[in-house]
Amino acid sequence: MRILVTGAAGFIGSNLVDRLLGDGHEVVGFDNFSTGQERFLESAGRSSRFHLERGDLLHPTSLSVAMRGVDLVFHLAANADVRFGLEHPRKDLEQNTIATANVLEAMREAGVRRICFSSTGSVYGEPEVFPTPETAPFPVQTSLYAASKLAAEGMIAAYAEGYSMQVFLFRFVSILGERYTHGHVFDFYRQLKAHPQYLEVLGNGHQRKSYLYVQDCIDAMLTAVANAGAKVNVLNLGQSEYCEVNDSIGWISACLGVQPELRYAGGERGWVGDSPFIFLDCSRMRALGWTPRMSIREGVERTVAFLQSSEWVFAARS
Amino acid sequence: MRILVTGAAGFIGSNLVDRLLGDGHEVVGFDNFSTGQERFLESAGRSSRFHLERGDLLHPTSLSVAMRGVDLVFHLAANADVRFGLEHPRKDLEQNTIATANVLEAMREAGVRRICFSSTGSVYGEPEVFPTPETAPFPVQTSLYAASKLAAEGMIAAYAEGYSMQVFLFRFVSILGERYTHGHVFDFYRQLKAHPQYLEVLGNGHQRKSYLYVQDCIDAMLTAVANAGAKVNVLNLGQSEYCEVNDSIGWISACLGVQPELRYAGGERGWVGDSPFIFLDCSRMRALGWTPRMSIREGVERTVAFLQSSEWVFAARS
Repeated sequence: MRILVTGAAGFIGSNLVDRLLGDGHEVVGFDNFSTGQERFLESAGRSSRFHLERGDLLHPTSLSVAMRGVDLVFHLAANADVRFGLEHPRKDLEQNTIATANVLEAMREAGVRRICFSSTGSVYGEPEVFPTPETAPFPVQTSLYAASKLAAEGMIAAYAEGYSMQVFLFRFVSILGERYTHGHVFDFYRQLKAHPQYLEVLGNGHQRKSYLYVQDCIDAMLTAVANAGAKVNVLNLGQSEYCEVNDSIGWISACLGVQPELRYAGGERGWVGDSPFIFLDCSRMRALGWTPRMSIREGVERTVAFLQSSEWVFAARS
Repeated sequence: MRILVTGAAGFIGSNLVDRLLGDGHEVVGFDNFSTGQERFLESAGRSSRFHLERGDLLHPTSLSVAMRGVDLVFHLAANADVRFGLEHPRKDLEQNTIATANVLEAMREAGVRRICFSSTGSVYGEPEVFPTPETAPFPVQTSLYAASKLAAEGMIAAYAEGYSMQVFLFRFVSILGERYTHGHVFDFYRQLKAHPQYLEVLGNGHQRKSYLYVQDCIDAMLTAVANAGAKVNVLNLGQSEYCEVNDSIGWISACLGVQPELRYAGGERGWVGDSPFIFLDCSRMRALGWTPRMSIREGVERTVAFLQSSEWVFAARS
């Protein structure tokens, strides 16, 4: 297959590109390198089956070029900066919602009929059912990030209905692993390198979250594409366990051999719009034949090992 | 209060403007007159408490002017053309989603903290629970129109969370009554005037829908603003009954004294993305002290009476 990956130079995108090339596919990588890293595509760049298209989804001329002859799209490009949405409320709308509209239009023009989309478990807001299934009660949105992803989900589903596409809406928990460049492990690692004697923690440390290892995430998406037959496939993607932020702090500290004093900002939430408990029911995805191989703890430890071997990412992301 | 109404020259907007002026409020009407009618604001224009601001929500300079000193916003401006969304997929995104983002930003800049939004029962897609409550299982979107309204709902709720606003998200069934200028009664009336001997009907005539009379709709919104205290208020708005399209055809034909041959296009749905059954559970709204006064049949009959007395709207809307 010829597969387009938007956000190809990002964390999940570049891992996916490598996997798809390894599986023998032709891959078109699309990225504006606003947060993506050239170095994540070094290995892909050595393949004759990899084509890189530099471009911005908000100026979609290059997108039309990239879309030619494509059989399947993984639309992963996004503003993944969940925490600071309130500081620039237009960013989620543009980079998540409008960008997705542009991808859909380019698909329609080029006659491309299948798309996988990285949505988020945050669309459940603050759910009352745990683990939370895809059919949880209609939620109220609590963050601009989740609202922008839900908006994209809705458009993609409407395109499936209106233009006979097959679509996969994956609601991710936070993803961990090699090439991870933002989020709590990144922040804690950076802090503990700068000042091993203490760690500043948003919230009270009791926020409960589920995490998934990036290769398990990719396994799941490829399993769904191979095995799911519906027109619109809404699929939670997470681990069948959760941990507290405090657990994660313990694992990271052990990896680094430090025992920091913990300074909590306090409160149930890390920031306005943060969900104090994310734990998804992934039985739909499991029924398609997928099982995650890595525990949350292993995912955190592999992430720390990656950061230790790749300290250049801190300069690149600062 | 000083109240801004977007879409002030529209069907629901102009009725709301008249009501608010009658209740003694200062009203700023905002409209681009793309589908709004000058004549609907003739009565309002005679009040010294009415201020009209001509402008487009996609070019929001005039919106900032209109927002000054406002206490409450009714954001009713929208692309209400549900049926033809697939012919111009950008229109719903721009006129419903992006326009709402602009209203929210103008509110934030001006320090305006309360907004009522006209969403739609179509956000439930094709629900499995009837009557459908606000907490129905998380739906899959089936039309670009509903997706664009759900996107707006999500942003408004996130603004409430992030910027301490109080918001009212009303999920309307179809609204009927004076100044109604699109939808099935309008189409059937126009056809029966042109050729009383037959009527072309989308679908099989068995689509089941609920309708609400415009003054009942306005009563509900004002009741909610007066009595609902939550930060985010999601409220279904409809009648506690539904009818078949065939019932409505019978009432319209009786009003006009015609007995047309019915020519059905066939199929359960009127068009791609049409919901074959819309019937909302409005007990939340009723618990706030609201009861609709007009039955669906009375709403249809009043709409026909309006169209008979206002045939100019057919020229204006053609």
